[in-house]
Amino acid sequence: MPVSRKILGSIERSSWIRKMFEEGNERKAKYGAENVFDFSLGNPNLEPPVRFNQVLDELIHDKTKGLHAYMPNAGFVQTRQAVADYLTRFNAPKFSADEIVMTVGAGGALNVVLKTVLDPGDEVIIPRPYFVEYNYYIDNHQGVPRVVDTKADFSLDLDAIASAVTENTRAILINSPNNPTGRVYRKKGMEELADLLSDYSKTLGHPIYLISDEPYRKIIYDDIVVPSVFDAYKESFVVTSFSKDLSLPGERIGYAATCPEMSDRKLIVEGMILCNRILGYVNAPALMQRAIPHLLEESVDVSLYQKKRDMLCEGLASFGYQFIRPEGAFYLFPKTPIEDDVAFVNALQAENILTVPGSGFGGPGHFRIAFCVSDERIKGALPGFERVMKKY
Amino acid sequence: MPVSRKILGSIERSSWIRKMFEEGNERKAKYGAENVFDFSLGNPNLEPPVRFNQVLDELIHDKTKGLHAYMPNAGFVQTRQAVADYLTRFNAPKFSADEIVMTVGAGGALNVVLKTVLDPGDEVIIPRPYFVEYNYYIDNHQGVPRVVDTKADFSLDLDAIASAVTENTRAILINSPNNPTGRVYRKKGMEELADLLSDYSKTLGHPIYLISDEPYRKIIYDDIVVPSVFDAYKESFVVTSFSKDLSLPGERIGYAATCPEMSDRKLIVEGMILCNRILGYVNAPALMQRAIPHLLEESVDVSLYQKKRDMLCEGLASFGYQFIRPEGAFYLFPKTPIEDDVAFVNALQAENILTVPGSGFGGPGHFRIAFCVSDERIKGALPGFERVMKKY
Repeated sequence: MPVSRKILGSIERSSWIRKMFEEGNERKAKYGAENVFDFSLGNPNLEPPVRFNQVLDELIHDKTKGLHAYMPNAGFVQTRQAVADYLTRFNAPKFSADEIVMTVGAGGALNVVLKTVLDPGDEVIIPRPYFVEYNYYIDNHQGVPRVVDTKADFSLDLDAIASAVTENTRAILINSPNNPTGRVYRKKGMEELADLLSDYSKTLGHPIYLISDEPYRKIIYDDIVVPSVFDAYKESFVVTSFSKDLSLPGERIGYAATCPEMSDRKLIVEGMILCNRILGYVNAPALMQRAIPHLLEESVDVSLYQKKRDMLCEGLASFGYQFIRPEGAFYLFPKTPIEDDVAFVNALQAENILTVPGSGFGGPGHFRIAFCVSDERIKGALPGFERVMKKY
Repeated sequence: MPVSRKILGSIERSSWIRKMFEEGNERKAKYGAENVFDFSLGNPNLEPPVRFNQVLDELIHDKTKGLHAYMPNAGFVQTRQAVADYLTRFNAPKFSADEIVMTVGAGGALNVVLKTVLDPGDEVIIPRPYFVEYNYYIDNHQGVPRVVDTKADFSLDLDAIASAVTENTRAILINSPNNPTGRVYRKKGMEELADLLSDYSKTLGHPIYLISDEPYRKIIYDDIVVPSVFDAYKESFVVTSFSKDLSLPGERIGYAATCPEMSDRKLIVEGMILCNRILGYVNAPALMQRAIPHLLEESVDVSLYQKKRDMLCEGLASFGYQFIRPEGAFYLFPKTPIEDDVAFVNALQAENILTVPGSGFGGPGHFRIAFCVSDERIKGALPGFERVMKKY
């Protein structure tokens, strides 16, 4: 085989996604991009805050030497300290720079944490539906994903989680606000999860880590509160990025934070810094690291996403679509009126509406609409959504 | 164990490096940073070319939307095309954007290529001394490094390479100009290597890939020529970055290029693009990608590094140090006058001179001096180098 068996398998398994993507592109070429309603990608349509370009402008005129050179693998101390100070404001524990590792986005952060803690065969519990990359990330480090169901409203099902724990359980990986469901886990649920993990950690004789993937923490609606995982459970990591709240996904800037009270925190952070290096990331991009201390308070205008959510939800509800109203992030995950979600997504594609089947997220019988698109695209697609629903 | 067994082992094995690093820091605190002569890191002391900041200035005032958004995982087509055009000028095959994947530095590029081609247990031949990260990168993807000797002048030993080939050999990983030796492999040697690899590929029934790590390609002295691996051997990858020639190591921008004539090139590049995504890199940093088409002709002033090389080589030779004069890169790899290179490096440290033992590069009985430092640092360290040599 010219490529490894595993990669060949991944290419073959994802060939239907590629096929859909290519068909989407063909439709754009045929009908004009403006007449194809693409909701397939979580690529924010809002521009970064105005302050972002101001900060870059200041930074590139800074004549200090060595600003693009290697810094310690964990990142610039000033950046790590700024993130620590920010976290101290929103969590009960007091953070220091020592608990922060700057990373190549949340994807980099998650791989760094997983490589640090996983021995081959270690299991990571992931509630479904889940972000499709998790399977790959866990497998990169020879871990084994243990997928568990959530409740009908996509909140955590503690019984399902408890039944999935084995002696090999090393971590649970959660994502709130959630991609693809938009669900935000509540404080009470997090505390119950923490109790469960504490109990099983005692039984197993090693901590079960809680890894919380939080790139959508600031993208929330209706004044909902995203609880602190650090307050609930000391064996916690947060992995996140500035991809969504600052609309910088292409720049690959994020961080991993450990709870200051985590057992063996010093050794674990040392492992994370080593992993940031040996995974080939080396460090988070320097210029973006330098920008972050000036941007921690900034965010895109979330009310614009809320408007999009409302427009989409009201439209789809009136056509008979069934869904849980997203509380955060910018995805809607409705039920498909037929069992076969791929067939339904194909029917939408015939209307020039591009979405993703729920099967890709471990949530068959659903489909994902990424609504981080222009209002016009949402408005333009509604008649097509209605026509397809009427068929079933 | 709070961290994985493998990571714990890596932390413990590298504890002497950390100890040296910490002792170096203590010396800087005690004697003042200007009185400690740090030659331990390949962190370029030259600033990026003036054009770099001009380009950034233009780019951040570009009002086009979506410039910091996700682009295809392989990178912006314009950037990939610019790199392809550049490679077409310096290699016999004609390149297209389809052969280029933009990456998070050369470290990212190498991990992408290795993950694409390695099945568990596949062997990668690495001539020693070698860049210390190679062992980690190969292990990340469950490959097995097969370290082979080079000749006394650090040129490739084809007999040693031939004896290392087994049915599991998947690739050979070379680095020219070399870190830590400064050796540049010649055209004739590359052609002989290509013949050897072609022969064994036929015997094995699958290609042995040549992976050439070339971040120092522009850092060359005395008009030496770095031959094209693509011209010599069609089953070749080049992995590289702009870290050294543009002095941008902190920004993590590089690429992987495949030979246009490589067997199954299309499938392999598809695998690379998938791996760029699933390794958590996702894509090379967007702003730097946009800068690259304007900077392919640029370089730091290499004559400044040549001056440093000359100053260091003349000084050390006059004290009786034995070494191969570097032909490229910015490292000198002299023999230690005693067998124990760690002891010798400790003796240098007692003179406030920080270097790295050759053992760390698979080259015991040597030590590495990274001379990408100020002229003053080289001048200031020479008396200490002399005193330590006199002791032995």
